[in-house]
Amino acid sequence: MTGDSNGLRPRRGRRSGGTDTKDLILEAARIRFAQEGFDAVSLRQIARDAGVDAALVHHYFGSKDELFAACVALPMDPAKVLGHLAGTPVEQRAEVILRTILDLWDSPARTAMLAMVRSALNSDAQAALLRQVLTRLILPRALAGLDYPEDERELRGSLLVSQVLGLLHARHLLRIEPLASVGSEQIIRWVAPTLQRYLTGDVDGQNSPSTSPAA
Amino acid sequence: MTGDSNGLRPRRGRRSGGTDTKDLILEAARIRFAQEGFDAVSLRQIARDAGVDAALVHHYFGSKDELFAACVALPMDPAKVLGHLAGTPVEQRAEVILRTILDLWDSPARTAMLAMVRSALNSDAQAALLRQVLTRLILPRALAGLDYPEDERELRGSLLVSQVLGLLHARHLLRIEPLASVGSEQIIRWVAPTLQRYLTGDVDGQNSPSTSPAA
Repeated sequence: MTGDSNGLRPRRGRRSGGTDTKDLILEAARIRFAQEGFDAVSLRQIARDAGVDAALVHHYFGSKDELFAACVALPMDPAKVLGHLAGTPVEQRAEVILRTILDLWDSPARTAMLAMVRSALNSDAQAALLRQVLTRLILPRALAGLDYPEDERELRGSLLVSQVLGLLHARHLLRIEPLASVGSEQIIRWVAPTLQRYLTGDVDGQNSPSTSPAA
Repeated sequence: MTGDSNGLRPRRGRRSGGTDTKDLILEAARIRFAQEGFDAVSLRQIARDAGVDAALVHHYFGSKDELFAACVALPMDPAKVLGHLAGTPVEQRAEVILRTILDLWDSPARTAMLAMVRSALNSDAQAALLRQVLTRLILPRALAGLDYPEDERELRGSLLVSQVLGLLHARHLLRIEPLASVGSEQIIRWVAPTLQRYLTGDVDGQNSPSTSPAA
């Protein structure tokens, strides 16, 4: 990594392209996204920081979503992996989400995802990027078609994240048995109802789901 | 930290006491617990590693539980903080557990607990210690009086851990809003039913809790 001490302008002057131009753009974008958040950042601003023409940013990365995904080295394209969720009936949404996630964790993408979670715990900038991955790229697709007021939508989304993150943490980072080694279907039977309640369950929790008494 | 290169015998010869004797015992115990696990380790063995008389270990630390808690610098005594759970009606257990945990996270103990979770992600030895804290000191108290076969008990316990760990992770480490700033009561309304299902809900998940449809 190269960059000036202020961290915001890795290079001066316009660049017309070349092998490291993509890296310059990514470096400038990572800094901007971490410091200011996904919404506040424009591609034009990132181009200026990187010392390149804005058209080059579009040429290399297409949309802001795609630039952001490249920035955080996301091991999958959320639009592709989660795009089918919008077409899923709401009452089956949790199961489909969880199955998609468990399949991802069983794919080669797992290593990169675990690295991302680990590094987010060691660096505020990385934590900011992961928060934005979750809230800007993942949750809107998980909650597609669920028509809630914005604050309720965010609360439901953050609860969903808490259980999925905890599952990743317990299964693949801390490796607590038997959760570390049980099959996907057993996890889905246990955890999908939790996620479904967070997605579509009673709003204020007064009417909480019934549970069977212990034996 | 001092110690020989083999890491198992920090000092040779018997010690009769003194300012650093406790540290020697703790150092030897940390290594044994991380390498062999809570169950396999005896106080006699730790005393031998530390080069002290076993009576001194009892004198300084009392039980193996207490030595282990001191080893991992647990910021609270699980017997004291969770001892009341055994007397809680099973159907209110999740709420009482969650309230106890949220109170702990709002106490000065939070910093030490977050440090423990972070370091467990950066070191296999620390992960082994945290796993043992959870499975040997915390879960038996959370599940006290719940009469399940051992494998089901462990599965329910690990599911409980997954949601609590995920809540800690989302609220205090990654700080995803609004979960990072909502009050305890709101978290209890949403998350206690999840924990209650993991504790006492239907075993194979066929009869999953009802959820209200989305608006």
